[in-house]
Amino acid sequence: MAGFWFTEKQTENFGITMKVNRTLHTEQTDFQLLEMAETAEWGNMLFLDGMVMTSEKDEFVYHEMVAHVPLFTHPNPENVLVVGGGDGGVIREIMKHPQVKKATLVDIDGKVIEYSKKYLPTIASELENPRVDVQVGDGFMHIAEAENQYDVIMVDSTEPVGPAVNLFTKGFYAGISKALKEDGIFVAQSDNPWFTPDLIKQVQKDVKEIFPITRLYTANIPTYPSGLWCFTLGSKKHDPLTVEDARFHEIDTKYYTKELHKAAFVLPKFVKDLAGE
Amino acid sequence: MAGFWFTEKQTENFGITMKVNRTLHTEQTDFQLLEMAETAEWGNMLFLDGMVMTSEKDEFVYHEMVAHVPLFTHPNPENVLVVGGGDGGVIREIMKHPQVKKATLVDIDGKVIEYSKKYLPTIASELENPRVDVQVGDGFMHIAEAENQYDVIMVDSTEPVGPAVNLFTKGFYAGISKALKEDGIFVAQSDNPWFTPDLIKQVQKDVKEIFPITRLYTANIPTYPSGLWCFTLGSKKHDPLTVEDARFHEIDTKYYTKELHKAAFVLPKFVKDLAGE
Repeated sequence: MAGFWFTEKQTENFGITMKVNRTLHTEQTDFQLLEMAETAEWGNMLFLDGMVMTSEKDEFVYHEMVAHVPLFTHPNPENVLVVGGGDGGVIREIMKHPQVKKATLVDIDGKVIEYSKKYLPTIASELENPRVDVQVGDGFMHIAEAENQYDVIMVDSTEPVGPAVNLFTKGFYAGISKALKEDGIFVAQSDNPWFTPDLIKQVQKDVKEIFPITRLYTANIPTYPSGLWCFTLGSKKHDPLTVEDARFHEIDTKYYTKELHKAAFVLPKFVKDLAGE
Repeated sequence: MAGFWFTEKQTENFGITMKVNRTLHTEQTDFQLLEMAETAEWGNMLFLDGMVMTSEKDEFVYHEMVAHVPLFTHPNPENVLVVGGGDGGVIREIMKHPQVKKATLVDIDGKVIEYSKKYLPTIASELENPRVDVQVGDGFMHIAEAENQYDVIMVDSTEPVGPAVNLFTKGFYAGISKALKEDGIFVAQSDNPWFTPDLIKQVQKDVKEIFPITRLYTANIPTYPSGLWCFTLGSKKHDPLTVEDARFHEIDTKYYTKELHKAAFVLPKFVKDLAGE
């Protein structure tokens, strides 16, 4: 189809709407409805089950903030795992860190990887990097089988519906803790405080029971519900708020800065209350 | 009308859409199209010329961030002016500061004040406070006629179209400087960096030519374009970034905190670049 407006209902009574120049691909995969479209405002976009996953115009925010916050917090992140993230954006950011020797991506849906390479080439640009191991598989199972293996784990999942439902459980966070080394760090996207306050509360509560250092940070993502996106960070040892200035090295970013690394954890009052801070 | 979806096109190709339970009031005033509606997601809302001005659910962000940042930066804000802001939200926040002896509100459109009192009572709640002087008039003229009078001036205007077009000019900022006392501070909303980067650049450039301390800060407002709203602060003497902890007194807020007061000035890289920082 071509020349229509797509509307994502972000809640029952509110949504965003955008002009689509043309649909690039539509397919019901084994896991979800995958759609790629060229939009007039945001460039090419990926939708899963009717929800915006990423756009060429604003993708840098999400991908930079998932990757750089834990990677600059950990003193020597050599072995990194990404669960989900088949579009490759988080991997692209991870590759900006020379200390990372290996980044493993486990996405359950190979079609996301395939069509991201085709229609989102600037996002998927590092998926062929020799330091990257791309696996099509169940991230939940991958985590369950790993032990004392990763320095950093990033959960780049969809919302807790469909294939990602297991990725928002306490059992999963316990598995992540086991899969991490003794000073490991994990980050997961955890939706927004305006429409899903209970989810944020629950995730914070669950992660706090497992990780001694649990923190919430936010970033502005205009195509995501409310524009205020939350990330939960769980860490066994290293605190993102006490990273020394010397640890930051120069990287090319459009959103992340070393100052924002810390400011992103300073929450609006109502979000702070949700996080139980 | 009742039971329809209202869509605001925030750009030519992108917008937000929301369920409206019923229209409360529609009127072409002498200055703009004024609409009040009861929405399912955001409570009662005010629209001017088809643009969201404020909603009961998220209004606290804008109003707190306009008011408290300059009021906690200024050591003794006794005389405050609000240009625009007829809904009364900024005034309500100003009244939380006991040092303020008088707050003058000058809105060009008396109908905004009238219907905000009627349909947004929790926002307009302090307009009858004896410390508040409500005037229906031209803010541009009011500023032009004032000299060495105000400690803080807040410009709570619509976008630079219609009646607010004069409020985004260098002449206006020069007038504000003249209207302020020798250690005065002003704040103006200045749109968003995703869709109006040139406006932000221009306002920053203009204000810098007049105020020795010029800063940009942001807040998340879900019903405003991109969710990332910018505020420009111009100050003759006091720097919002060096406010001492002792100056903050307890106030009841849902967004602003003394930590966020400073963190709000830490900008994403691409916004920092627009601000010329």
